[in-house]
Amino acid sequence: MFKKLLIANRGEIAVRIVRACAEMGIRSVAIYTEPDRHALHVKRADEAHFVGEDPLAGYLDPRRIVNLAAETGCDAIHPGYGFLSENSEFARICAERNIAFVGPAADVIARMGDKTAARDSMIRAGVPVTPGSEGNLADLDEAITVAEKIGYPVMLKATSGGGGRGIRRCDSPDELRAQYPRVISEATKAFGSAEVFLEKCIVDPKHIEVQILADSQGNAIHLFERDCSIQRRNQKLIEIAPSPQLTPEQRAYVGELAVKAAKAVGYENAGTVEFLQTDNEVYFMEMNTRVQVEHTITEQITGVDIVREQIRIAAGLPLQYRQQDIQHRGFALQFRINAEDPKNNFLPSFGKVTRYYAPGGPGVRTDTAIYTGYTIPPYFDSMCLKLIVWALNWEDALDRGSRALADMRLQGIRTTAPYYQEILKNPEFRSGVFNTSFVPNHPELLQYSEKRHPSELALAIAAAVAAHAGL
Amino acid sequence: MFKKLLIANRGEIAVRIVRACAEMGIRSVAIYTEPDRHALHVKRADEAHFVGEDPLAGYLDPRRIVNLAAETGCDAIHPGYGFLSENSEFARICAERNIAFVGPAADVIARMGDKTAARDSMIRAGVPVTPGSEGNLADLDEAITVAEKIGYPVMLKATSGGGGRGIRRCDSPDELRAQYPRVISEATKAFGSAEVFLEKCIVDPKHIEVQILADSQGNAIHLFERDCSIQRRNQKLIEIAPSPQLTPEQRAYVGELAVKAAKAVGYENAGTVEFLQTDNEVYFMEMNTRVQVEHTITEQITGVDIVREQIRIAAGLPLQYRQQDIQHRGFALQFRINAEDPKNNFLPSFGKVTRYYAPGGPGVRTDTAIYTGYTIPPYFDSMCLKLIVWALNWEDALDRGSRALADMRLQGIRTTAPYYQEILKNPEFRSGVFNTSFVPNHPELLQYSEKRHPSELALAIAAAVAAHAGL
Repeated sequence: MFKKLLIANRGEIAVRIVRACAEMGIRSVAIYTEPDRHALHVKRADEAHFVGEDPLAGYLDPRRIVNLAAETGCDAIHPGYGFLSENSEFARICAERNIAFVGPAADVIARMGDKTAARDSMIRAGVPVTPGSEGNLADLDEAITVAEKIGYPVMLKATSGGGGRGIRRCDSPDELRAQYPRVISEATKAFGSAEVFLEKCIVDPKHIEVQILADSQGNAIHLFERDCSIQRRNQKLIEIAPSPQLTPEQRAYVGELAVKAAKAVGYENAGTVEFLQTDNEVYFMEMNTRVQVEHTITEQITGVDIVREQIRIAAGLPLQYRQQDIQHRGFALQFRINAEDPKNNFLPSFGKVTRYYAPGGPGVRTDTAIYTGYTIPPYFDSMCLKLIVWALNWEDALDRGSRALADMRLQGIRTTAPYYQEILKNPEFRSGVFNTSFVPNHPELLQYSEKRHPSELALAIAAAVAAHAGL
Repeated sequence: MFKKLLIANRGEIAVRIVRACAEMGIRSVAIYTEPDRHALHVKRADEAHFVGEDPLAGYLDPRRIVNLAAETGCDAIHPGYGFLSENSEFARICAERNIAFVGPAADVIARMGDKTAARDSMIRAGVPVTPGSEGNLADLDEAITVAEKIGYPVMLKATSGGGGRGIRRCDSPDELRAQYPRVISEATKAFGSAEVFLEKCIVDPKHIEVQILADSQGNAIHLFERDCSIQRRNQKLIEIAPSPQLTPEQRAYVGELAVKAAKAVGYENAGTVEFLQTDNEVYFMEMNTRVQVEHTITEQITGVDIVREQIRIAAGLPLQYRQQDIQHRGFALQFRINAEDPKNNFLPSFGKVTRYYAPGGPGVRTDTAIYTGYTIPPYFDSMCLKLIVWALNWEDALDRGSRALADMRLQGIRTTAPYYQEILKNPEFRSGVFNTSFVPNHPELLQYSEKRHPSELALAIAAAVAAHAGL
């Protein structure tokens, strides 16, 4: 096993990896930029190294990070999610320097990051994909021709896109003509590539994704699925495992498809195969070659520690589990508590956490890097806490979610927590049958009244009085 | 289901019950005495009522509490553990006033609280008990005769005793002669009864206890066992579920015995049957007719919410589970974090919690009533936090325990947490094979060096400087 592991990330996932290292007897090394001087991952890691004044640059420089890992005697690097986690160059440099990259091989990252190459791989492996263009589009004329063939609406997508960016829905040739230059422009700026392709738009699908684990000995298993249909503008808000709306046959089918996909590309380490699911069909959407934000809920239902497995696999160990060893029990939900004001168009609400009280008791887990007195810097993702609840039954899990959200205290910033309380009361959500249009179809759920905490109100009044008095 | 439930308790178990009520849509009513004015159970309950200046009297007055429940429109009372939870008079008054008592019937509490009556019930039911006197002892002469017959060492016990008090081991007739008047005196003072009995002393047993659930329709099931062998002076410190040292056959056997015991006495609600286990034998020790401090670890391995089931049963609902529905998965450990200084003979260390940071991440649960800024009053039990960890495998659960203990911050008071870190490193403990002599046999585990937190050290230095300067 590794002696020392560098964590090329920050925030809650860096803390998550520190914890896995601590449990495995591996020394953890954190990196941090200026705004993260007082970050929890810095406090909790066994050592921490400063990588620059710029908030982001130090987290995004593959060569510098690998050099630091080598200098500090690390034999492994965990990239977390985001940042360099799906950067094939980073994985390649690690391999060159003989430092284990906790993730798949560089060429697999590259192939799955190229959406048309990934589609091709899936078609060859017999995994269903949505009808679409064969590879990248040559020009707008080809786009129009393909769209006529597969039928509107279509999705125009940047080949190198991701995270919900570089994607446009087009309902007519006119819309396609209008969006085509925009997506090319966006893709060039955001991803450094002008390549785009077309897919049939699956209207109101469910977002179903399957967690897989594959070792260097050719073993691959799945850990069942997650339902991430509750999303806003392609950003997941609440994730559920297993999906409350799949039949056992559908569950088995997507699980098998995901393992087939992983094996077809020679995948190694943890990964996620994302599908669009309709009542009758399942289509491959993309494969994420990293640990996901929502890996936690799969851990809750299967008991498998996914980050620990990632590290074991990267160290060349075989999987500890066969497919038949993996059982799912109960239902888990993850609420992404974002530092945003839902009532103000989800405007970021960074600032000082004047009070944080973690909810506790049965079936409650929190993964966060915040603490009382911590100031959330404005340079990074707005997700500041993951609240995960689990119960044996679906209804009990929902009620536990409401209770845990109410039990939590997170003062000084606005968060998405009160919005999730509204979602938890919604009969459609509670029925367990919903799709990706749930959030846009329910704007009324944003019409909750704010229950401000008395101390927060007192502060607001004091501030108002002070302002009025010209203090 | 109940509309409103009064919680006749305080501390973490009161918070635990508030949470169960919140998840079940039942309005919760707290009571509190003067030192508990700022207690978490008061803050989290839907309503809270003051029951007097005296720290304890208000929690120990059955008639006053039942009156308050009636006045506030409660249809149920949950007694928690300790206080009035095993007071048959309290259960009787509830029944009289037509308020559901969340626990068994008054006569069952009374019978199980009388240790010789409980022994008699078990003998009749065919549950093995240790050899001992037939009922209570008439005098010292009878004690000597019985002891000669069953062989030394023997345990001289107060019939109404509990919580590890009113018990003496005697290794010879001389010791028995010396201890006999002392136990009678102690029993008279502590329990208001001079009755004593004798049992053969089982040397170095394992403490194995089985969680049972029984409904008003005559259904009774067990939720597997807990191993509570890690104890100091009959006070449990670390509890484990399931026991790492039982064979599947032993597990099935104690489970069946516990259900047999429950059915024999017409038990209803949650309860625990405690056994002394040797390599070859199992002996009934006592039955606890309430929820236990350590119910949490059974919840972790089975997924069943025991407090919720208690409330359902008290409302007359049938058990949701048959025996075959109850599966155990992985291992859970509970660390009782006591406000005590292990290096100073476990002297209580009450005071202000200057900082509390709850450990998080996978497989970690906390049940506590403390929070940053809370002052632990000196009038109650020293247990201030239950840290529960879970993992699929025994070794992983141990490593998770070490990690979670290190992850936690609890400043301002001394606690048992560093002592538990030492236990977690001990090879005998890690082997999973140990008995109730583990703690007395390993005094060297108290020889750890204190890693004081820098801020705590700074405070100590500041205090020393101030004292020196005569400030």
